[in-house]
Amino acid sequence: MSESPVTYADVERAAEIISPLVHRTPIMTCETLNQLAGRELFFKGEHLQKVGAFKFRGASHAVARLSEQQQANGVCTHSSGNHAQALALAAKQQGMVAYIVMPENAPCVKVDSVRGYGAEITFCEPTQTAREQAAREIVERTGATFIHPYDNPDVIAGQGTAALELLEDVPGLDAIICPVGGGGLASGTCLAAHGINPDIQVYCAEPAGADDTFRSYQSGERQPVGVPNTIADGLLTSVGELTWPILRTHLADVLTVTDEQIVEAMQLLWTRMKQVVEPSGAVPLAALLHHKLPGEVQKIGVILSGGNVDLNKLPW
Amino acid sequence: MSESPVTYADVERAAEIISPLVHRTPIMTCETLNQLAGRELFFKGEHLQKVGAFKFRGASHAVARLSEQQQANGVCTHSSGNHAQALALAAKQQGMVAYIVMPENAPCVKVDSVRGYGAEITFCEPTQTAREQAAREIVERTGATFIHPYDNPDVIAGQGTAALELLEDVPGLDAIICPVGGGGLASGTCLAAHGINPDIQVYCAEPAGADDTFRSYQSGERQPVGVPNTIADGLLTSVGELTWPILRTHLADVLTVTDEQIVEAMQLLWTRMKQVVEPSGAVPLAALLHHKLPGEVQKIGVILSGGNVDLNKLPW
Repeated sequence: MSESPVTYADVERAAEIISPLVHRTPIMTCETLNQLAGRELFFKGEHLQKVGAFKFRGASHAVARLSEQQQANGVCTHSSGNHAQALALAAKQQGMVAYIVMPENAPCVKVDSVRGYGAEITFCEPTQTAREQAAREIVERTGATFIHPYDNPDVIAGQGTAALELLEDVPGLDAIICPVGGGGLASGTCLAAHGINPDIQVYCAEPAGADDTFRSYQSGERQPVGVPNTIADGLLTSVGELTWPILRTHLADVLTVTDEQIVEAMQLLWTRMKQVVEPSGAVPLAALLHHKLPGEVQKIGVILSGGNVDLNKLPW
Repeated sequence: MSESPVTYADVERAAEIISPLVHRTPIMTCETLNQLAGRELFFKGEHLQKVGAFKFRGASHAVARLSEQQQANGVCTHSSGNHAQALALAAKQQGMVAYIVMPENAPCVKVDSVRGYGAEITFCEPTQTAREQAAREIVERTGATFIHPYDNPDVIAGQGTAALELLEDVPGLDAIICPVGGGGLASGTCLAAHGINPDIQVYCAEPAGADDTFRSYQSGERQPVGVPNTIADGLLTSVGELTWPILRTHLADVLTVTDEQIVEAMQLLWTRMKQVVEPSGAVPLAALLHHKLPGEVQKIGVILSGGNVDLNKLPW
């Protein structure tokens, strides 16, 4: 097996680099949810991170690690989700330009948000090919550095800082659970957790309608997602080339949940914890409520990955 | 003017008595909301209090102050709102029985919640007369002590502890703003703030559709609410006999807002702060966004009074 391109030391260094740039998000607990899950849960509130999602960690780190020349040319990505906002704000905060490719059918609220962070938006047809093509053209024209949403070592190390803080604030966790889409957060979490203590069980939770990581984990080979179908719009992508080997090595298990279970967990987070968490962020709690974890797994860290929802399009 | 039946010393003592019983709720800040308001806002998160509202403070204090004999006979109230849940849990936590009169058309979710805290529920016709009559009969039959939701010195002192904590955590506030319904929270806030520093401006915010405190403040005489009409269902009651003299003495102003402005503020709290706050709790932010406060009022404490909403009946 080849050496991982990202290590625990990278996560530690990322934490030092981004600590002046990101929020140190709070740990939250809720007796009712503990009772329902039959475990002691410690929620890491990344929905309270800047731009409302953990993505700001990886984007801030990737931007900070650029050379002076690269910073002068700016950064580029294609995304209609939290990574677009994260990269736009990270670039603005560190004084450089961000070129964001968005599909022309992207929700107005997301376009406005990215524009509000001062990014230069290029619209394209809503296909993966058109997005990649448009980003390539921008990179060629401007010399901007392309920042992948998850298959980027600096992004992975940056996302790992959430688990690092969680384990600093709550020592002695038996397990950590986070959602998995492309695997940036999940792989960073693995590196952080096992750098601190190899005995911590790291679980990923995934929508049944986008269960590529579950199938990859079962078969031992990376499986594409096919046509994803889930309300967890942050988890539609397939696990990455860079993130998959890390997950394969470190994960204790991958747990899948239905959209119905995701909505139930989301509503509990809203009504009981009073926290606005997006569907993707509710996937781990859904898994905890519907899967039997081993008895020795009692103290569990749960990463609430984001809180960006359209209040006019709630899934109930 | 007669001596106030509640004083700053009562609030201080209440804080000592209830500190092992209630959550010390966090202070939250949000750059976006600061920019929109043009001030520095410090939110006291009482939506994260037990039962999801500040009401638990007053109820816990009133229950704790009962004599042994009174405690043996239990407590009683009539309410379909947060006070019912608060008194039910406070009684349960302190080992006594709670008799709660609820209108027979009360939402199932609230009835279940009160029942979940082990209270004995009596249903009655949905009129004020029927509620008072039912409560009176219970008190006569059981010897239970009636705990009024706001016109009770121990309740007022208990509600004041939220502002006390806020001023301990954020010294140097120029002003505090809270919503006003019956005036329990508002009068307790006045006593706490001016006990610490008489120069702190205390503002109340009120829905235009239930503006009895505004009209009382303008006229100098307590005015009944008439027929209230607002989505802020926690603020339908008229300011009380006990609370009104305290408010008249201490308030800097009463600010009214429309239901449209309440919904706008509520959505900002949900989407920007990621906090589930009920309409009543969003009234102060609505006032800050739509009223011009004096220029010297820069650092403002804002009490987020509660977060109990029915996700299937959102006001948008």
